[in-house]
Amino acid sequence: MANVNPYHLMFLFLGLTTSLAVGLSPHLFIHFLSIGIFSLISFHVTMKTIPSLSEKFVKAQVTGVDMCKPNGKPIPEAMGVIAGSVFLMTMSLFIPIPFLQFDKTYLINENFLTDSIKLSVPMINLKARVFDDLQFESLIAALLSICCMVLLGFVDDILDLRWLHKLTLPTIASFPLLTVYAVTYNCTWVLLPKPFSFALNLGIFYYVYMAMMAVFCTNAINILAGINGLEVGQSLIISISVLIYNLIELSSTVWKVHLFSITFILPFICVSSALLWYNWYPAQIFVGDTYCYFAGMTFAVVGILGHFSKTMLLFFIPQIFNFLFSCPQLFHFVPCPRHRLPKYNSKTNLMDNSYFEYNPKEVKFLGWFCLKFARTFKLINEETISSTKIKCTNLTLINLVILWSGPKREDSIVRRLLFIQMASSACAFFIRYYLVQFIY
Amino acid sequence: MANVNPYHLMFLFLGLTTSLAVGLSPHLFIHFLSIGIFSLISFHVTMKTIPSLSEKFVKAQVTGVDMCKPNGKPIPEAMGVIAGSVFLMTMSLFIPIPFLQFDKTYLINENFLTDSIKLSVPMINLKARVFDDLQFESLIAALLSICCMVLLGFVDDILDLRWLHKLTLPTIASFPLLTVYAVTYNCTWVLLPKPFSFALNLGIFYYVYMAMMAVFCTNAINILAGINGLEVGQSLIISISVLIYNLIELSSTVWKVHLFSITFILPFICVSSALLWYNWYPAQIFVGDTYCYFAGMTFAVVGILGHFSKTMLLFFIPQIFNFLFSCPQLFHFVPCPRHRLPKYNSKTNLMDNSYFEYNPKEVKFLGWFCLKFARTFKLINEETISSTKIKCTNLTLINLVILWSGPKREDSIVRRLLFIQMASSACAFFIRYYLVQFIY
Repeated sequence: MANVNPYHLMFLFLGLTTSLAVGLSPHLFIHFLSIGIFSLISFHVTMKTIPSLSEKFVKAQVTGVDMCKPNGKPIPEAMGVIAGSVFLMTMSLFIPIPFLQFDKTYLINENFLTDSIKLSVPMINLKARVFDDLQFESLIAALLSICCMVLLGFVDDILDLRWLHKLTLPTIASFPLLTVYAVTYNCTWVLLPKPFSFALNLGIFYYVYMAMMAVFCTNAINILAGINGLEVGQSLIISISVLIYNLIELSSTVWKVHLFSITFILPFICVSSALLWYNWYPAQIFVGDTYCYFAGMTFAVVGILGHFSKTMLLFFIPQIFNFLFSCPQLFHFVPCPRHRLPKYNSKTNLMDNSYFEYNPKEVKFLGWFCLKFARTFKLINEETISSTKIKCTNLTLINLVILWSGPKREDSIVRRLLFIQMASSACAFFIRYYLVQFIY
Repeated sequence: MANVNPYHLMFLFLGLTTSLAVGLSPHLFIHFLSIGIFSLISFHVTMKTIPSLSEKFVKAQVTGVDMCKPNGKPIPEAMGVIAGSVFLMTMSLFIPIPFLQFDKTYLINENFLTDSIKLSVPMINLKARVFDDLQFESLIAALLSICCMVLLGFVDDILDLRWLHKLTLPTIASFPLLTVYAVTYNCTWVLLPKPFSFALNLGIFYYVYMAMMAVFCTNAINILAGINGLEVGQSLIISISVLIYNLIELSSTVWKVHLFSITFILPFICVSSALLWYNWYPAQIFVGDTYCYFAGMTFAVVGILGHFSKTMLLFFIPQIFNFLFSCPQLFHFVPCPRHRLPKYNSKTNLMDNSYFEYNPKEVKFLGWFCLKFARTFKLINEETISSTKIKCTNLTLINLVILWSGPKREDSIVRRLLFIQMASSACAFFIRYYLVQFIY
């Protein structure tokens, strides 16, 4: 992508978004302008910081080897922590903006003053201008949850934590979020689809659902990952879909929560774009678990506090498919090798399918059923080696794409996967705005 | 300390604190009981997690070499991240407690119900019981600032950031805190001491002062560090002093902010104690910058949101002295070697003074004046090597203690330093409760 200037793209994108947003709600002009400026700064800072800190990462041996390249040069790993930190810093600086107002006040009590020494001093006076106080709480709690996940992700990248931690820690990290939801909205009613058509109060179980949503989002992106640009690419497409959804809903009555969501998503898109610039094939950096957790929690946050967690899940269709497709291996119905990434073929410079081997006589019923099902829909390719050994393509979306399109170069596969992501976003909008009238 | 059971000590400490606190404000019984239980859990989790994760730290090469020991075995570094994470997780889980209240609500809208199917579901209902809504915001913003600093500290430990980052990033990390101060209290009046005796409204400059306080606290502990148990020991003494101060003030009219402070300080004391258990001479772990930043930000947070930032600074007397004493070297009035830690003497197993060398003809006026001043008060020891070379003890509090008490074993020096810390806490209380009446 060397012939494109990323700054021009970013100017175009932010200009378009801001003018669209302002067109929809003209009185929010200053708010959008300030988000736009902050996002642009976050983009610039990320673009500059990544190359300047790369050397420190290599020196500290926070590196990984690109399995899909001929030479095994160490590449800086866990760079998502830069994107996450810049995002957090940007938001920290942005927090006061929607509230800020400067007054002049007297330096000392008026009783002491004669006219000749009326010294004045600028005074910060925060008043709810765009957001109200409840949204201020939400803003901070959301940042706390995201910050916890960035910290956890970076620790995970350095120490390589266990699966148990990856499931429990996001749950705990989502607690501030859930508390703020309980304090602010506390709406736990769910509308059932036709033919029931009545509202169900899930009570405490709604909170369980939201905590699980946080765990799902953080791990879903982490599972569909491993080749250059895929983690960041899919997150970018999801976040742009969310942005479009928010822009559409900005003219609805609940515009406030969508404005809130935009406040998070716009800087997120900017830091992610900068990250993608360096992470695109051939990758100069890896983003690590840090980025996956950071992105996942950001989506969970805007989904929960923006009250569109179900719509958010629609944008995760490829991730949900990939998760369900991976289940037989994840839960060990069939054998699961250490790595399930496609195999790099150094002769052709293309990516081939990777395989796992199983003994057809040892596979239990559930495994047999899953394989049968996958075979029916041509989701796997099997080769019989001997009567006790069959090799089968690994059950991931990446392998499926290679299976259906033939061996391709790494960036070509990523493009296909991102196209699938885009298509399913389009599909999500179709469901949300068209099909939904037949369901509810 | 192998003959003491840390759990017994912790039970004793928490029992004493809780009964004292409850004695002062009986209606807060449940609140204190819950803080006590959560603190105890955080202590236990930290005690268990540190040894179990030590191996992962060594494997990931997050290690340091103990310069003051005969053998150079690598020791897990940056363990403060465990204390910080456990603290954050504990607080995240604790957040809902002061608000929590369970109600039963109906599963579906009452209009749909007949008496026979009145299904009910537990419902979370958060109401301000102990804290009010403003303090809820403060609680989350404080955690956000602390979380940012833990993240920054860990990144610093891994990547070894530059000084510029160490000063700017805490400033940005304190922004959520300052914003919440502006939204909630926004009191920027400062009472001038006698003979002026009137209040001064510092306006925006009060925020500058608070941001600088955050930067000072995070770096002050980091400068007075480097020998086993010193960072954690001094933080523990400061935090216990803060706890005592809060307990005293719990019977005043502004008890709410002190209760707020206790809510942070008690779990902090518990995770720090667990850390000290492993960090005490001979250290099995190092705490790293992570812990210094974590501790410093916690103090800044309770000082600012508890409205006792000036009293807080009184507890930092040894750190302030150490900072001022170090200034000639930090600002390069006199030469500053890479390490200023005392030198380990492997023959005697004692710590000797470390020295820097300077050319008396090249020292500028400021440097000459500082050395002259230090010489007068016997704060340094100089030896003339040649007419152009004088060697002088490094300008740190640790070197000063060795200079005054003679070479001692590492733990003996730490004990003396911690005694100084305790004495200055006593001094701080004397100033706060006795001398203050002559000043204001």
